[in-house]
Amino acid sequence: MLKFNEQQQIEDIQGALALRPEVEKLVDQVWEKGFDAIYYLGIGGTYASAMQAVTYINGKSALPAYVQHAAEYYTTGNQRLTKDSLVILSSVTGTTEEVVKAVKEIKKAGAVLLGFIDTPDSILADLCDHVISYPNPGTEQLKFFMVADRLMKNNGDFEDYAEYYQELDEHLAVGLVEAEKQADAFGLKFVEKHRHDPMHYFIGAGNQWGAVYSYAMCYWEEQSWLRSKSIHAAEFLHGTLEVVDETTPVTLFLGEDEQRPLAERVAKLLPRICGDYTFIDTKDYPVAGISEKYRGRILSPLLMHCVTQRIDAHIEKLNCHPLDIRRYYRQFEY
Amino acid sequence: MLKFNEQQQIEDIQGALALRPEVEKLVDQVWEKGFDAIYYLGIGGTYASAMQAVTYINGKSALPAYVQHAAEYYTTGNQRLTKDSLVILSSVTGTTEEVVKAVKEIKKAGAVLLGFIDTPDSILADLCDHVISYPNPGTEQLKFFMVADRLMKNNGDFEDYAEYYQELDEHLAVGLVEAEKQADAFGLKFVEKHRHDPMHYFIGAGNQWGAVYSYAMCYWEEQSWLRSKSIHAAEFLHGTLEVVDETTPVTLFLGEDEQRPLAERVAKLLPRICGDYTFIDTKDYPVAGISEKYRGRILSPLLMHCVTQRIDAHIEKLNCHPLDIRRYYRQFEY
Repeated sequence: MLKFNEQQQIEDIQGALALRPEVEKLVDQVWEKGFDAIYYLGIGGTYASAMQAVTYINGKSALPAYVQHAAEYYTTGNQRLTKDSLVILSSVTGTTEEVVKAVKEIKKAGAVLLGFIDTPDSILADLCDHVISYPNPGTEQLKFFMVADRLMKNNGDFEDYAEYYQELDEHLAVGLVEAEKQADAFGLKFVEKHRHDPMHYFIGAGNQWGAVYSYAMCYWEEQSWLRSKSIHAAEFLHGTLEVVDETTPVTLFLGEDEQRPLAERVAKLLPRICGDYTFIDTKDYPVAGISEKYRGRILSPLLMHCVTQRIDAHIEKLNCHPLDIRRYYRQFEY
Repeated sequence: MLKFNEQQQIEDIQGALALRPEVEKLVDQVWEKGFDAIYYLGIGGTYASAMQAVTYINGKSALPAYVQHAAEYYTTGNQRLTKDSLVILSSVTGTTEEVVKAVKEIKKAGAVLLGFIDTPDSILADLCDHVISYPNPGTEQLKFFMVADRLMKNNGDFEDYAEYYQELDEHLAVGLVEAEKQADAFGLKFVEKHRHDPMHYFIGAGNQWGAVYSYAMCYWEEQSWLRSKSIHAAEFLHGTLEVVDETTPVTLFLGEDEQRPLAERVAKLLPRICGDYTFIDTKDYPVAGISEKYRGRILSPLLMHCVTQRIDAHIEKLNCHPLDIRRYYRQFEY
């Protein structure tokens, strides 16, 4: 299988899960001190992950958790982000310009900064109060959700936290590589059909909204230089649907959280108006050892990532386009 | 000028401004009773207006104001939307399916519902605690901002509220029709060039983000059946920029609020990577009688709407496509 190192991927997930004692210690420290609000800070792909984490918390808890866009912070500001707030962020390089600017401003407000900064010797690692360095961008969502889970556990919103993580510790890593194997044939077929699409629409809801947002922008546009548009399933029905016809390539991500009915509504409509639709449903990917009741948490977004990784691997090969080159980003100052 | 009734448009704006005593009375009632948070509820175009109002408040106040997406509410929920919350919404028909579902759920939570419902004899008008009916969808943003302004005034964030509204009462309506006249030639030229674009990118930040979001989706896609994508100026630099080249049609909305620098950054980059860009800058539209310091509030989004109205009028004519027909929306059940 293309770009697939089973052992490495298992170790990557297992390694992220092994960060849990460190995450718990830091979250518990913040918890004991108390806080007025939780902000997931991001831009681009980390903004998408932030949206996923906050939607996840909102579905299960009354905790005051919000997305804070980095560039909006250092321009518009947020007077409710205070010295008593907890800010969670993630960065591979530790140098993302807008996040550095936002974090410098947040330090003036005095909030506690918890950073998953993959490059420990970086400006963002220096600026954060607490840093966890685990250089694996594919586990960003898992890290964000681990913080969310611990916060919810402490808040009394997650009684079976221990059982849940026992299942993840024992079965998640293998479950994901198995799903990726299952998805490979689909990925190739999808890419053969869509690799020259002039525009591709991706639709999703719930924690799959962050997934389609990031997939369309950070993968198709940024890495593959393919045109795509993401649209929330509920919003699709309020405008974008009118440009869809028999020739429009549309892919719907179906997840397993509270907003699944919003995606299912689009799934019912698409066959009536569109001649070129694809459904990717995480329910089609069974994972041994993970209880049904836990699938709507981190599992569903990670399974979707397994599927899209297969698409990306085949796009890179068939389109003869290395995913790690950029036309403009970080190529010159702007 | 096509589709332009100067006297009617002046009366429409003046009529919306004349709602102010009613808005003030309702907001003051809620203020005296006290509230824990303010939610602007929406979906599609009203979601865009909600984003504009909340971004506006965030730039000037510590008031706890949030956007609540209607379909996310009745699926994911929001445990922080309580009996003590204020919910503001707007609807032309008073029947938008997802908003009706959300409002029914919100009533169970017990929040106060303030609705600008243009059809007084409608389900949403029945469900809201307070209803203001002024049948003019073009003034939705103005209504939302009037509520925001009164809340901020009561919160001590808007000392010169009275002076500001005196200027609006005296000069806004005429200023907007003058701007529309100024924009007409540009609108025609823009449409002649772009009316067959296979895809058009719209970029904006601050209260122009809601503007581009709504313009791309509710006007180009829904009304004109033209493909378009909106992207926040800060997010554009984290992915979408990579698909832009000399032939990509890109239009940047520049506003006058705190996030203007984010749009200006894109304005500096575009000429280096794109051969088909347009800037629409509300600063190019002077309005007699409105102080410079007030232009970043409601004026800038309304001015942008004046410009886009000229584009829409010419698209409708040249593309021989009536803006009020729909392929699918409300044509059948889904």
